[in-house]
Amino acid sequence: MPDISVTPADIREAATRVSRIAHRTPVTTSRLFNEAAGVEAFFKCENLQVGGSFKMRGATNFVYSIPEADRARGVVAYSSGNHAQAVAIAAERLGIAATIVMPHDAPKSKVESTRVRGANVIVYNRFKESREAIGKRISEETGATLIPPFDHPWTIAGQGTAALELLEEAPDLDAMIVCISGGGFLSGCSIIAKDMRPAIRMFGVEPELANDFALSIEKGERVAVPDSPTIADGLRAPTPGVLTFPIVQSLVERILLVSEDEIRDAMRFLMTRLKLVVEPSGAVPAAAVLAGKLPSGVKRIGIMISGGNVDFDVLASLA
Amino acid sequence: MPDISVTPADIREAATRVSRIAHRTPVTTSRLFNEAAGVEAFFKCENLQVGGSFKMRGATNFVYSIPEADRARGVVAYSSGNHAQAVAIAAERLGIAATIVMPHDAPKSKVESTRVRGANVIVYNRFKESREAIGKRISEETGATLIPPFDHPWTIAGQGTAALELLEEAPDLDAMIVCISGGGFLSGCSIIAKDMRPAIRMFGVEPELANDFALSIEKGERVAVPDSPTIADGLRAPTPGVLTFPIVQSLVERILLVSEDEIRDAMRFLMTRLKLVVEPSGAVPAAAVLAGKLPSGVKRIGIMISGGNVDFDVLASLA
Repeated sequence: MPDISVTPADIREAATRVSRIAHRTPVTTSRLFNEAAGVEAFFKCENLQVGGSFKMRGATNFVYSIPEADRARGVVAYSSGNHAQAVAIAAERLGIAATIVMPHDAPKSKVESTRVRGANVIVYNRFKESREAIGKRISEETGATLIPPFDHPWTIAGQGTAALELLEEAPDLDAMIVCISGGGFLSGCSIIAKDMRPAIRMFGVEPELANDFALSIEKGERVAVPDSPTIADGLRAPTPGVLTFPIVQSLVERILLVSEDEIRDAMRFLMTRLKLVVEPSGAVPAAAVLAGKLPSGVKRIGIMISGGNVDFDVLASLA
Repeated sequence: MPDISVTPADIREAATRVSRIAHRTPVTTSRLFNEAAGVEAFFKCENLQVGGSFKMRGATNFVYSIPEADRARGVVAYSSGNHAQAVAIAAERLGIAATIVMPHDAPKSKVESTRVRGANVIVYNRFKESREAIGKRISEETGATLIPPFDHPWTIAGQGTAALELLEEAPDLDAMIVCISGGGFLSGCSIIAKDMRPAIRMFGVEPELANDFALSIEKGERVAVPDSPTIADGLRAPTPGVLTFPIVQSLVERILLVSEDEIRDAMRFLMTRLKLVVEPSGAVPAAAVLAGKLPSGVKRIGIMISGGNVDFDVLASLA
């Protein structure tokens, strides 16, 4: 293993902080899914998480890691939605101000859920402006701490607590599969999973239409893809993180790709059979498993359902 | 307490049998719900149960209670859906034949899920024929054991295991609220809940359009209502059971009523905020709590989500 910035011990320490706000989400199973997919699957339901996604873990770990003296100046984050909501909730719980930079076309449900938590929402045009630059400027002007959505050790450590809990409940998994955008969730999960169970096989999944991680792994360096029209709005980060890329390179066996139709089919399956409302990004790992994208030999697999924040009209369009 | 046919010990014994097929379903919480409803709520997610509803519990307890010698002649059940599916699954697991009598207008998802389990489905016109008579005739002709949907001690004891599990995870509830059709679920839950926590306040809820239990309690005797057009297709039993009525009379504080709009609002809330797919009947208790129908003084309440088997077009119509 290369010298990486987040250790299994960091993730175990994060678990204590994370539990101050986040739920320990349930792990569910489904014979119908197992029959359809030919594996034994264990679903970690981060769609039932506070704020509706795993992002609550990283945001919670982050805000509680900010030194007391800096907290009063507030926090700032840029996000297409779930990270925004999570930061807003964490800031509200600590009684500090949050400024959230959101794209103009973020799902209505995500914008609303961020506003309702008292955050100051700044909308930008994601085709014309840089969210990183806006976030940086606000941080410099106000002294607010910038909370990166994935490329920070505190964020990565927080996200990894989901895998820690999953392996506590289903210890004998031979694989785990996680969606990938910037790579924070997959990185955190891989670090702790490989520590708890060295033989576990880690898989990432991204949409064919947002395949920056697969391309980067193939090329051996971080490459960027154009803005993506994938339905999986949470997986549109155009390039792997600086911290997350080498972690994924060294710990993840393969990055799988799924089509838009496969994502929709999986959402429908999870809704009608497992009774879980799952956002497009959250259905991506299940989509890969249902579509038979796993290499052979995988028998017991942990499937991360990353979130459930989806507009009703998107759900209705699946009917 | 009057002399009733099901004891807390029966329910504790049923729990062992039930666990052979049924899941121990998760209990979830939601700050958004608590803020909206002004209570602290604990949701028992029977929509995530095998077969998509709590009926799996009663059906499992029932089939494993049938004497070995009788099992080979199979089972027969009449049901608008969830009980049918549960009996079909239990019979399939035991390798015995199941005949299910279903109304012509049962939700497609429920008919399909019953057929896929290998059951022989007999469709009847619920406006012209008696499902009880059809079930009885099949039982007499084939020797199959009739599994009543609610009015049998084995069924009632099985359903009560949901409350047993809920109180194990949330022991300090001061109330519990359960939907009511024939009364098997509410009866079983009340018997065990009052045993585990004598001060607990039990509430039943039914649609205003299917208020046979409320009318019967008011009148002090079992009365029947006409066939109901309520969206809550699982709660259309026209009259309380012979066994269940006195149990509810003695153990339940009040039967609450909800409108069709309140049911739809609750389904939408549970989907968009709690990320749970809940069928109309399953949303009825949450609807009563959200609509402020509880008497004062209730602080920590267990809410039974009875099931999640709903056709996609019904969900889409909520958008």
